[in-house]
Amino acid sequence: MIESIKMTDAITQVNNLLLANQFDDAAQMLGGLHPADGAEILMALKPEYQAVLIDRLQATELAEIFEQMHEEAMLAAAHHLDVDDLADVLDEMEPDMAADLIGEMDPDDAAEVLEQMEEAAPVSSLLAYPYDTAGGLMNLPPPSLRRYMTVKEAFAFLKQHYRDASEIYYVYVLDRNAKLIGVVNLRALILAEPEQTIEELMNRDVIVARVDMDQESVAQIIRKYDLIAVPVVDAEHKLVGIVTVDDVVDVAEAEATEDMQKIGGMEALDEPYMNIAFSRMVRKRAGWLVVLFLGEMLTATAMSFFEKEIERAVVLALFVPLIISSGGNSGSQAATLVIRALALGEVRLRDWWRVLRRELWAGLALGSILGSIGFARITLWSLVADTYGPHWMLVALTVGIALVGIVLWGTLAGSMLPLLLSRLGFDPASSSAPFVATLVDVTGLLIYFSVAAILLRGTLL
Amino acid sequence: MIESIKMTDAITQVNNLLLANQFDDAAQMLGGLHPADGAEILMALKPEYQAVLIDRLQATELAEIFEQMHEEAMLAAAHHLDVDDLADVLDEMEPDMAADLIGEMDPDDAAEVLEQMEEAAPVSSLLAYPYDTAGGLMNLPPPSLRRYMTVKEAFAFLKQHYRDASEIYYVYVLDRNAKLIGVVNLRALILAEPEQTIEELMNRDVIVARVDMDQESVAQIIRKYDLIAVPVVDAEHKLVGIVTVDDVVDVAEAEATEDMQKIGGMEALDEPYMNIAFSRMVRKRAGWLVVLFLGEMLTATAMSFFEKEIERAVVLALFVPLIISSGGNSGSQAATLVIRALALGEVRLRDWWRVLRRELWAGLALGSILGSIGFARITLWSLVADTYGPHWMLVALTVGIALVGIVLWGTLAGSMLPLLLSRLGFDPASSSAPFVATLVDVTGLLIYFSVAAILLRGTLL
Repeated sequence: MIESIKMTDAITQVNNLLLANQFDDAAQMLGGLHPADGAEILMALKPEYQAVLIDRLQATELAEIFEQMHEEAMLAAAHHLDVDDLADVLDEMEPDMAADLIGEMDPDDAAEVLEQMEEAAPVSSLLAYPYDTAGGLMNLPPPSLRRYMTVKEAFAFLKQHYRDASEIYYVYVLDRNAKLIGVVNLRALILAEPEQTIEELMNRDVIVARVDMDQESVAQIIRKYDLIAVPVVDAEHKLVGIVTVDDVVDVAEAEATEDMQKIGGMEALDEPYMNIAFSRMVRKRAGWLVVLFLGEMLTATAMSFFEKEIERAVVLALFVPLIISSGGNSGSQAATLVIRALALGEVRLRDWWRVLRRELWAGLALGSILGSIGFARITLWSLVADTYGPHWMLVALTVGIALVGIVLWGTLAGSMLPLLLSRLGFDPASSSAPFVATLVDVTGLLIYFSVAAILLRGTLL
Repeated sequence: MIESIKMTDAITQVNNLLLANQFDDAAQMLGGLHPADGAEILMALKPEYQAVLIDRLQATELAEIFEQMHEEAMLAAAHHLDVDDLADVLDEMEPDMAADLIGEMDPDDAAEVLEQMEEAAPVSSLLAYPYDTAGGLMNLPPPSLRRYMTVKEAFAFLKQHYRDASEIYYVYVLDRNAKLIGVVNLRALILAEPEQTIEELMNRDVIVARVDMDQESVAQIIRKYDLIAVPVVDAEHKLVGIVTVDDVVDVAEAEATEDMQKIGGMEALDEPYMNIAFSRMVRKRAGWLVVLFLGEMLTATAMSFFEKEIERAVVLALFVPLIISSGGNSGSQAATLVIRALALGEVRLRDWWRVLRRELWAGLALGSILGSIGFARITLWSLVADTYGPHWMLVALTVGIALVGIVLWGTLAGSMLPLLLSRLGFDPASSSAPFVATLVDVTGLLIYFSVAAILLRGTLL
């Protein structure tokens, strides 16, 4: 039984064999593990050891291990193989995974390796679909039944055509034009009598995905209807492939990671944190940091407009970080909520008015809470000590009122920006929390000093 | 075929029937849809219409619709039923879903409804497990085979015992003590000859989850090994349940949403954004905002230490928002990266040293980039106009050096805080981006004004 304790053992053993230069034994051990474990161990090794093991593993073993890797790792591992060996491995892989790997390769290398493959046709056909659609996610359609078959004939058909299948989920029923007309689940087939026909058993309400549907929608269908696999059809309703739940689990996880990283204010890494090359990681983080920094420079410009006011009332400067961060925090909350709700399909673009109304009241409520605390804080400090001078009451009022305005503004900006980006065809997750915070920082300063200018005229200013 | 276009039609039709007071027709239409669609429509309706439809749907229909709802929505819908009717619905539900609903109920109501149920035993047994473990996620184990059965006998066994099963994934093999000794996939069963024994077909390397394993680990197992279902065993390796991939998809999605919302600086909503009651949402957001606000108040305190310096050199105040936000942004990046990598199992606690080393260099690199831009910006402005006075070079140096220190500090704090929280047994996602930003804001001010005090002594200060 494979459990996580065993996993650490296996890593240690493979490592020890490699350190003792017993490469054949290490390769044999790796090939004997579950491919998912084999992939995990291989990815954790240094490139030179990877090369040594990849060289010694059989094509069938490598194919199974490659299938468990994400694309960048597959690509890195494939570099250790020459074209002929890589073609052999690709021939053994599931066509959808082979297509994923080839799709990541340099076009010239891809053409060369396709030429060397014995069974290039299925892979080539899958390569024609954009990677982020149902077509890009799907595998080739499984052999399908006809409705006039009996259960007994169906079993004979499965025995004949599913020898090489890794697993059977549902069996599909096609008409003479290859159009999808029904689905039979295996439970129904097993429970049925031998002489019943497929037509009697099949479910005609097949939930399908269109081949050009984007991958997030496919994931939503599988999730919503609790499916193991969804058939993919073309415009004529012909069965062209299936997407299985394990592909979708990976997609959902990758999309969530991407969204989180974007919300966190960087480009999506697209690779595991511990595996990505340092320079690539820094580049992906520096890009947004620089953009945010350039945006945030406007705060210095905004502040310099009020240099005279600050000179006259330094007390105003003390609250600048407090004020602007409150706007940033409330904006970051609202943006995160709306981005995630959009990704899950809970909020649609047409709901913008309901979101705006909701966030208007939420912003007012949150702003009032923070404004009251800010007011109370300055009042308390002033009653105990003379921290904020004789006009502390006006300072407290300025801070309190500015907070209501800034939190309201942060909340509205944070909630509307993802919807606006989505409307304009951009990824809503790009309106990251830091991006919203930067926007709100600059405008927040304007709100704060404007409130101050009105309330403090004739006293402090 | 059910497609999304059809869905909007169905919503409109149900709505029209309700508006025309044709409640029976509306209920009949809803009952005829896929339960996932029925659930979606029901949740979108006003409570009074929900009551009207729930009253008219049959227990079997309601059971299937309830199974498609998240727990809060189930609970809300269940409030429209009296104890007897609710017990009937629960009897028709899958025991794991029934247990989820009962687990959310007020303990007195739960006891009462359990008493009214005809098949309370399986549900009660599941209620004993903590909800966030494999036990809390699992359903009851399916009827299992014995190893000496022939394939023919196995088919007969399935026909007899799987009449009520919704689907068959794998069939498990138990020894005489109910210990799990193997698994047979349906493909192998279908391909086998009638006289082969289960022992010949079964795979002895069963990947299992322990009943007390936390739900994220169960999700990781299913994801890693691309399983449709994982058997759950107790300490004696007895089969006590199964967790299916659709449960895990929901868990993974819910966990990602929770993490994102926490990173965004609020309590996890635990309900869809558009459905959660306004007051509850504001409470969940206000909590963290207030905590962050109180923390951020320390910036005012920190600033007041440097009031004299600001009075003498107002120019320093101008760069405060720029400086602290850079620390906050870099901290938010690092925290997001590490939180997500922890959740995906890419980073473990024992990797803290590697993460620290990585982030040390990343922080230095990012800090140097931003520091250089900051220095260049002040230099450029000063060459063009006299914005920053005669000592602009020193101001530029102060800002540049402070940026390196603050970005480095933000990066380190952001990356280490999630690991520290995790080590202390807290949820790493609680070290939200705004939380890190607040921490970095306060310390960032100290860094900035300290650098200024050293560099500007004798000139501006």
